[in-house]
Amino acid sequence: MRTVKLGLLGVGVVGSAVAKAIEEGDGLTGRSGVRLELVKAAVRDLSKPRSVELGPDLVTTDPNEVVSLPEIDIVVEVMGGEDPAFDLISKALASGKHVVSANKEVLAKRGDELLATAAQHGTKLVYEASVGGGIPILNPISDDLLANRIDSIRAIINGTTNYILTRMSSEGAAYDDVLADAQRLGYAEADPTADVDGFDALYKIAILGRLAFGTSAAVDSIHREGIGRIDAKDFRYAEELGFTIKLIAAAQRNDGGLLLRVHPSLVPLDVPMASVNGALNMVEVEGDLVGPLWFQGPGAGPEPTASAVLGDVLRIARQPDSNGAEQSTTEPLEVAPMSGHRCQYYIRLTAADKPGVLALIAKVLGDASISIRSVIQMDADETAGQADLVIMTHSALEANMQEAVSRLRSLDVVIELDNLIRVESYSHSA
Amino acid sequence: MRTVKLGLLGVGVVGSAVAKAIEEGDGLTGRSGVRLELVKAAVRDLSKPRSVELGPDLVTTDPNEVVSLPEIDIVVEVMGGEDPAFDLISKALASGKHVVSANKEVLAKRGDELLATAAQHGTKLVYEASVGGGIPILNPISDDLLANRIDSIRAIINGTTNYILTRMSSEGAAYDDVLADAQRLGYAEADPTADVDGFDALYKIAILGRLAFGTSAAVDSIHREGIGRIDAKDFRYAEELGFTIKLIAAAQRNDGGLLLRVHPSLVPLDVPMASVNGALNMVEVEGDLVGPLWFQGPGAGPEPTASAVLGDVLRIARQPDSNGAEQSTTEPLEVAPMSGHRCQYYIRLTAADKPGVLALIAKVLGDASISIRSVIQMDADETAGQADLVIMTHSALEANMQEAVSRLRSLDVVIELDNLIRVESYSHSA
Repeated sequence: MRTVKLGLLGVGVVGSAVAKAIEEGDGLTGRSGVRLELVKAAVRDLSKPRSVELGPDLVTTDPNEVVSLPEIDIVVEVMGGEDPAFDLISKALASGKHVVSANKEVLAKRGDELLATAAQHGTKLVYEASVGGGIPILNPISDDLLANRIDSIRAIINGTTNYILTRMSSEGAAYDDVLADAQRLGYAEADPTADVDGFDALYKIAILGRLAFGTSAAVDSIHREGIGRIDAKDFRYAEELGFTIKLIAAAQRNDGGLLLRVHPSLVPLDVPMASVNGALNMVEVEGDLVGPLWFQGPGAGPEPTASAVLGDVLRIARQPDSNGAEQSTTEPLEVAPMSGHRCQYYIRLTAADKPGVLALIAKVLGDASISIRSVIQMDADETAGQADLVIMTHSALEANMQEAVSRLRSLDVVIELDNLIRVESYSHSA
Repeated sequence: MRTVKLGLLGVGVVGSAVAKAIEEGDGLTGRSGVRLELVKAAVRDLSKPRSVELGPDLVTTDPNEVVSLPEIDIVVEVMGGEDPAFDLISKALASGKHVVSANKEVLAKRGDELLATAAQHGTKLVYEASVGGGIPILNPISDDLLANRIDSIRAIINGTTNYILTRMSSEGAAYDDVLADAQRLGYAEADPTADVDGFDALYKIAILGRLAFGTSAAVDSIHREGIGRIDAKDFRYAEELGFTIKLIAAAQRNDGGLLLRVHPSLVPLDVPMASVNGALNMVEVEGDLVGPLWFQGPGAGPEPTASAVLGDVLRIARQPDSNGAEQSTTEPLEVAPMSGHRCQYYIRLTAADKPGVLALIAKVLGDASISIRSVIQMDADETAGQADLVIMTHSALEANMQEAVSRLRSLDVVIELDNLIRVESYSHSA
């Protein structure tokens, strides 16, 4: 049986799970027919306790030792972050090693350069684990769906925010309370910014956009909104209208090219994404032949991520001499501006509770070519003389909506424009 | 650009969709970077109208012409059925051609022989389209999940029965009425046996069982029940208990080896499978590392099936010289008997409506080591002096339950044992 030698960059929770699976699976020879051997692992801190026992010969604090050791066939990079991962991956690829990475940030920000380095040196860079944790999604898009023109990818791709939104929905709880609880339970980090402000989802949709559409988008050019503005009220009103609220990351073909966006969305209760609860992830892919597909599973966690990392490792280990995929002949799509997005909108505002208010608001929307589908007045406060107005529009252009929003804000009768949430549209039935 | 030449066996709805996608996709060069050319297609009837125009040079009524034409690299078999597909696939593989098949029946019944022929001649036999239509499921199990020990596969894998069950559930309609309507609408065939009696699902789970567990099960050794006994009442009672009813095909590791089974099941309303409606399919896979994953999408239809067929074709076309997967070193699991299955059971019976009846029934169950979890009396008919009894048991052994059922049938107070439906158990939360 052939033995394939691995180096490991990073022995945190994911790296430990990778090392442990190799050790306990006896090199994972079972279904794969090859034997993996871990020969060097770079850690930041030798004294840190780990769930896996690594011998002293195996461990180093110098990651350069891993990428330069000649006997290593495949480097597994699970350290995360842009630096020093970028340099280490580059060096490994340039020295003839294949690289398997779970690092969404470096692949979103500098994937183009890394893939060019791999192509130049005839090495492979694969990263199934960087998106959707244990869910196979990149390889199915690259391989199984290759006969399709991909038209749309939409995903619930961040477990922390989905956990928070699910609890807000089921308990009617406030964002701050659920976030604090999620932090206490380990579902959210002490600094939750990367998750709740949408950066994590953004990195992942950037990777999916490049893979499926050939489009390299600068990460700071992608429209991004977090979940911090979502209120318990929004769930109550959304449900009354037949929706729930999810943080959606999307990459979709439109007239202008490829529109990438990350923001909370109203999702109809009867589509598959509405039932994705807790820390689960779901990626919806639509191809011209296959129609819609849904891939659902654990989007994070050490063992699921190790499953994806080791799937990539074994793929390379079994076919070390195969060429990378032949180059696509399709012109990459241009990045389309958010201003060209079209959807229905949910607007929640606090307005003066007196005659004529709706006429003023409707006029602003009408002047911006936005039609109203429904208006509901909720939670009237007679003492304060104000009430919530929940407006659902027909499909409208983002540019027009932004214009309307700034005019609504300047109306005297509008006390506060509390929230503007886009609505995901579905042509196919669930 | 490299051109790869295809032969087509069968130009029915799927074959036509394959030919059309190649034609309209200009050989599907887009994302794949290779060019497919259809050079010969075997049809049964030259005069039959088709959705794709094939030139007279391209078409033959002799399928042997396709498998013996030297210039053909890959044969696509989409004719279905065991004969003559078995001989044609064998010949193609033996003459150095790779074969892509969508034929669940021949792969379930004679896949072992066909795979041996492929191995012997260094050719590839792949068949993603045979299970789950357009849903990538075989390749993800073979490749992406290779580091996992697969523990369980459960699937809603037949669109016709799921369509019928969904309508029975949502409309409270009778099986015969919905079946007749499904036939009128083209969701069920004039002879619906293959679907409603579970043969189609059985072929597919046999293929999944071989792929994921290495187990070759004779198709007539697999426990199979159709949906014909399910009544509108069962949906009503199941829902009251927190369940819906689905036709489940399962391949699961247990103490005795691999248990394969196809039958209607009660599925808790809060798990992903419960929300798979209409003709959609879902495959749930559980691996030791990744945990549960769900793959959902269109399980049939010409374009989705063509997507899977062409995915396989392009995979071979791009890597023609790669070896097949290395042989697994894992011992295949033995086929476990259905009598060793353990689950909760739903029992619906028509019983005399008088004191002491439940005691008699409970004694029969107790004597067979079966504990009752709940009993509900429903739809009492005072004139006839009878009522429905719906019993949910705790987890019990199939062998014990079958013994109890035959004793229950012999009780005077049991007028009819109307239905016995197994309950799917879930250790993970939805």
